[in-house]
Amino acid sequence: MLSLNELIQQRFGLPTTVDQTAPNKTLTDMLAHRSCRQYKADPIPEELLQVLLAAAFSAPSKSDLQQACVIRINNRDKQQHIADLSPHTAWIANAPVFMVWCGDSRRIRRLAAWRNHPFANDHLDAFMNAAVDAGIAMQSFIVAAESVGLGCCPVSEIRDHIDALSTALELPQWVFPVAGLCVGRPVEAGRISLRLPLEVTVHTDRYDDSAMIEHVADYDRRREAIEKTKPDQQRFVAQFGVSHDYGWSENRTRQYAVPARTDFGRYIREQGFDLS
Amino acid sequence: MLSLNELIQQRFGLPTTVDQTAPNKTLTDMLAHRSCRQYKADPIPEELLQVLLAAAFSAPSKSDLQQACVIRINNRDKQQHIADLSPHTAWIANAPVFMVWCGDSRRIRRLAAWRNHPFANDHLDAFMNAAVDAGIAMQSFIVAAESVGLGCCPVSEIRDHIDALSTALELPQWVFPVAGLCVGRPVEAGRISLRLPLEVTVHTDRYDDSAMIEHVADYDRRREAIEKTKPDQQRFVAQFGVSHDYGWSENRTRQYAVPARTDFGRYIREQGFDLS
Repeated sequence: MLSLNELIQQRFGLPTTVDQTAPNKTLTDMLAHRSCRQYKADPIPEELLQVLLAAAFSAPSKSDLQQACVIRINNRDKQQHIADLSPHTAWIANAPVFMVWCGDSRRIRRLAAWRNHPFANDHLDAFMNAAVDAGIAMQSFIVAAESVGLGCCPVSEIRDHIDALSTALELPQWVFPVAGLCVGRPVEAGRISLRLPLEVTVHTDRYDDSAMIEHVADYDRRREAIEKTKPDQQRFVAQFGVSHDYGWSENRTRQYAVPARTDFGRYIREQGFDLS
Repeated sequence: MLSLNELIQQRFGLPTTVDQTAPNKTLTDMLAHRSCRQYKADPIPEELLQVLLAAAFSAPSKSDLQQACVIRINNRDKQQHIADLSPHTAWIANAPVFMVWCGDSRRIRRLAAWRNHPFANDHLDAFMNAAVDAGIAMQSFIVAAESVGLGCCPVSEIRDHIDALSTALELPQWVFPVAGLCVGRPVEAGRISLRLPLEVTVHTDRYDDSAMIEHVADYDRRREAIEKTKPDQQRFVAQFGVSHDYGWSENRTRQYAVPARTDFGRYIREQGFDLS
């Protein structure tokens, strides 16, 4: 087993001066997290799934409002249909377990009517709380699943065809998809994805990104040194050409240079949310 | 150590027929999660915090965009100031570690300018992705911290005075707080908070809440049987009177019957976000 130091060094691509904290399996599994997109055909036992779902919904939720839910897709035709909606994430079709994590602001609104109280919090904060609750529960599921050797891949691309997805899941007012999640036994160990150094993501007392660009330039170089992007693997070459200093930042800024999911706000409003 | 079955029974307040999956410490810690609001004065070693932060930022992030950041509050005066903003969550002041998890859509926008690309994704989807990334990273931190015996309490109430908080943290455009997090060594074991049964939160193939109200009524009774809410502990008694069948649903629908954080959308727009 790698030490925590070695795992942190691998994840952040930097030598670490962290003292040797006693490793425990939770920390080593979390530091070794990797996305898994290829799964063995083995089904996941139902009793194990129940344990993982119980762990997921044991996570904190905003004000104990419990505004997350998940739709498990057991019908293979429906799973294939959702996979077909997201051609860039075709591995959805072959995942032994596929589910969609949703923000659920419907339950508390129905309960308000049942308890005969007005619902007086129709605004952006309420929407965000439900979305974040869903993310928290999904991440808990991922950590739980990885602790028993399963591999996961969250998929936000399923929101690319939000109306078709929402129809397939029969989502009523005030429920909306946050991410899909594929789960199965990994075919291969997979690769650890380098993360930005903590100097970029952890601030002290005040937000300070004065050295961010330099840190990212170094990070781009470290990632490329480990896994060189070939010219024909660059994103949107037809539009942006071949970059000679391609890296994470060029890849991700090209991605966001092209509009995506501009209809999500319209969908969320149609689901009944007031975002003022 | 409790078995997974016993932990699930305790968490959901229901007998469980789950087969005996081999327990591992990650799962038992997650199923035994509880919020911790009273901390021993012991400081948390810096090297341990670095490990926990590394674990937190090893979590998945939407499209590898890494749109979360955290502000650690090391200055005790600033911590006291933020505690003073949230009188209902006074334990912030005494937490050995206090931090604020933020959505960060600023980094990718600054990088777009640096890489000379337009930023073409100014819409609700981009806002939600940053918020969810922050929730995912925070939840990873919590699981990591609990694995080494620390206790945590996420605090969304810090958003009640969003302008003062944002000023204190010197948050620039496109960065916004999602939740505070208190961390320390627990004074006492704390109590496991009952969760809605998985029949309510886990759907199969399609969203179906036709039996939700009955399940919640049972859940209300189970929670009250374990921890009776005294009449003077009911929420907003002056406004709503004393309920004779008080429970979780009455508590939470009273909470949302009164407007809170109606200014969050205004703040987010002022931070530069287009939510259309």
